[in-house]
Amino acid sequence: MNFLNEVAGRFPGAVSLAAGRPADHTHDVEALHSHLRTYCAHLRDARGYDEREVARELFQYGRTKGVVHELIAAGLRVDENIDADPESVVVTVGCQEALLLTLRALRRDAADVLLAASPMYVGVIGAAALVDLPVVPVPEGPDGLDPGDLRDAVRAARDRGLRPRACYLVPDFANPSGTTLPVEVRKELLALADDEDFLVLEDNPYGLFPLGEERLPTVKSLDDRRRVVYLASLAKSCFPGARVGFAVADQVVRDRRTGARRLFADELAKLKSMATVNTSPIAQALVAGRLLEHGGSLLAGTAADRAAYRRNLRLLLDGLARRFPAGGGHGVSWNSPGGGFFVVVTVPFVADDAALERSARAHGVLWTPMSHFYPAGGGERQLRLSCSAVGPDGIEDGLDRLAAFITTSTERGVG
Amino acid sequence: MNFLNEVAGRFPGAVSLAAGRPADHTHDVEALHSHLRTYCAHLRDARGYDEREVARELFQYGRTKGVVHELIAAGLRVDENIDADPESVVVTVGCQEALLLTLRALRRDAADVLLAASPMYVGVIGAAALVDLPVVPVPEGPDGLDPGDLRDAVRAARDRGLRPRACYLVPDFANPSGTTLPVEVRKELLALADDEDFLVLEDNPYGLFPLGEERLPTVKSLDDRRRVVYLASLAKSCFPGARVGFAVADQVVRDRRTGARRLFADELAKLKSMATVNTSPIAQALVAGRLLEHGGSLLAGTAADRAAYRRNLRLLLDGLARRFPAGGGHGVSWNSPGGGFFVVVTVPFVADDAALERSARAHGVLWTPMSHFYPAGGGERQLRLSCSAVGPDGIEDGLDRLAAFITTSTERGVG
Repeated sequence: MNFLNEVAGRFPGAVSLAAGRPADHTHDVEALHSHLRTYCAHLRDARGYDEREVARELFQYGRTKGVVHELIAAGLRVDENIDADPESVVVTVGCQEALLLTLRALRRDAADVLLAASPMYVGVIGAAALVDLPVVPVPEGPDGLDPGDLRDAVRAARDRGLRPRACYLVPDFANPSGTTLPVEVRKELLALADDEDFLVLEDNPYGLFPLGEERLPTVKSLDDRRRVVYLASLAKSCFPGARVGFAVADQVVRDRRTGARRLFADELAKLKSMATVNTSPIAQALVAGRLLEHGGSLLAGTAADRAAYRRNLRLLLDGLARRFPAGGGHGVSWNSPGGGFFVVVTVPFVADDAALERSARAHGVLWTPMSHFYPAGGGERQLRLSCSAVGPDGIEDGLDRLAAFITTSTERGVG
Repeated sequence: MNFLNEVAGRFPGAVSLAAGRPADHTHDVEALHSHLRTYCAHLRDARGYDEREVARELFQYGRTKGVVHELIAAGLRVDENIDADPESVVVTVGCQEALLLTLRALRRDAADVLLAASPMYVGVIGAAALVDLPVVPVPEGPDGLDPGDLRDAVRAARDRGLRPRACYLVPDFANPSGTTLPVEVRKELLALADDEDFLVLEDNPYGLFPLGEERLPTVKSLDDRRRVVYLASLAKSCFPGARVGFAVADQVVRDRRTGARRLFADELAKLKSMATVNTSPIAQALVAGRLLEHGGSLLAGTAADRAAYRRNLRLLLDGLARRFPAGGGHGVSWNSPGGGFFVVVTVPFVADDAALERSARAHGVLWTPMSHFYPAGGGERQLRLSCSAVGPDGIEDGLDRLAAFITTSTERGVG
């Protein structure tokens, strides 16, 4: 994504419908002080720590798997109906490190591969590249991954002498596609993972932000055979600056050297000790303090964010519909995500980096070429719009600019 | 080190001369609030940020290479006479991530190897294992690495078809050996690196803590040909709980795909975006705030620590000398580090994990078997003592217990 950052840097006045970061409307530095005090009070009151122990927990090295694992496990029970043993939780430096450790643990030799719903989050492409784990893209349909397609991809990989270890996906309001996996498909996915012996890597950064009132059960909450490694970011549900995420890895695995049985979480922890040693306990304290201030529930803590993101997504979808009315012969279409930050727009020209450059220069609007999310090619005439980091005015202004860009590009017959 | 943590957990009453963590005598939670306020004031006063910008810097994602790079570069100039372009600084999740990214960047294929002064820090063994980079140990002498030995090892590796990319060492008060590289040898090392075309990875966690008044110049400060990647932890000079370290990587490298020239730091940043995205800006703010409170100098900020570690190391060395007097026929000897946290004791029996278990159980004292620091074998009759996390009473008590353990083990003729 370096090119995208570079374009954004060169056109600071452009409206960004590219940035997928959370909004910063709720951020007040004093809140950090409060979160820290809340967590320290928790250590004193709930854990009986004296001042020396409180200080030691924050200033010193800490447990490799993290120090807020019990609060995270309790929150998962309340918010997601996930029954996680706190010992199976590994607190990480953002979800990215959780992904990195998981993929590294799965990559034993050159025969191991990762399957991933395509288009896919660039972070999974990066983490897999870092640990030399090849990625086999499995194309999504409008309702996300199709279990039949996935089964075919698993078997085809196996026929080529490869070992499909896991399938990565974002079941709720995926980045970039916005798709959501129906409940029945979640169950089929679990059955398939069990039949074909692979893990499901469920990444869930956006599940708290549905467009409607209903939220689907996470795949992990349906997982009665420990087939799912649940990966979570607290960047969207708390704030990115803490850089705290986690994995729930409750699989029982055998140590390849000693044959001893242990939790997959402990295998991840061993790798974590080689990567970052432990996650800053102060950063953990900040997100845990925020969690405690909302009764231990991320769902409760994100009520205002949920309302804002819901409003933004509706504005974005309504705004597209107004600017590109049905039957208008404009050749522009888009999907209707059930929540999250992203909408995919299909246009009648190639929406590549050069088109983005034109869009930024001539129309002052930024978006993300979908081709960046297809490691093996695809999405050439699609672009991703994000509505998380802009306000209502920015969305309207950005869509006006985007409509002008699309009209111009279509007329010029670019691509 | 899992076994060591496990032993420590089973014998909580034992005196630990094993733990290499910094002392926690200077830690007060209120200091965290102060550090954060100091950094926010700096953003307002020195960078002209308004409240919204201050909040955004702390709460949001940030620059991949970090946000406190200018303060770090300024501190290196004052404290270490290192003239680092701030753009060559990559702020990382502790020194461990700096090591991980550097080794990953150096490992292109199976022919690449890392040379490392042996015995070596377990973190380098771990990071190299994580990125599948083989380590060639180069035995240290009493004054650390011998450039002649290193040259022979480089050439021998090359003769075997390998590509020695770098040599890792801790030139000042190494962990675990306590050795220090003389100034002349530092210069020879740089000349050798230039002649034989490899990088020097200088890890410097302990340089601020000499036993005497004098500090030797870092290898990086002598490096006029950009041969040194400087790796630093702020765990000992600030506090471990922030998990902040950094690399100075001012080499100009060519992108293998595009041929474009760029800083090695930017190559590390690209890998960092795949590993942890960025280092928590709040964690960076905490260490930067502490740095600012001491005029931007880690040397100034560690005056009390320096005095305490100096006292502890003297007590440890004097205490060993009193308990094992010269000519006593006890077969016990030790080195005399010029600073840092560690002393290596040679004993007339095998000091392995089983011996540690006996020591903990029967004598209530913990230490570290040196064999853990030799990936290819060695150090069987040596143990590492650390004096960083204990006070004067602990050192005396621990040494009494250790002397009893050593005497008993020698009499039993164990090993």
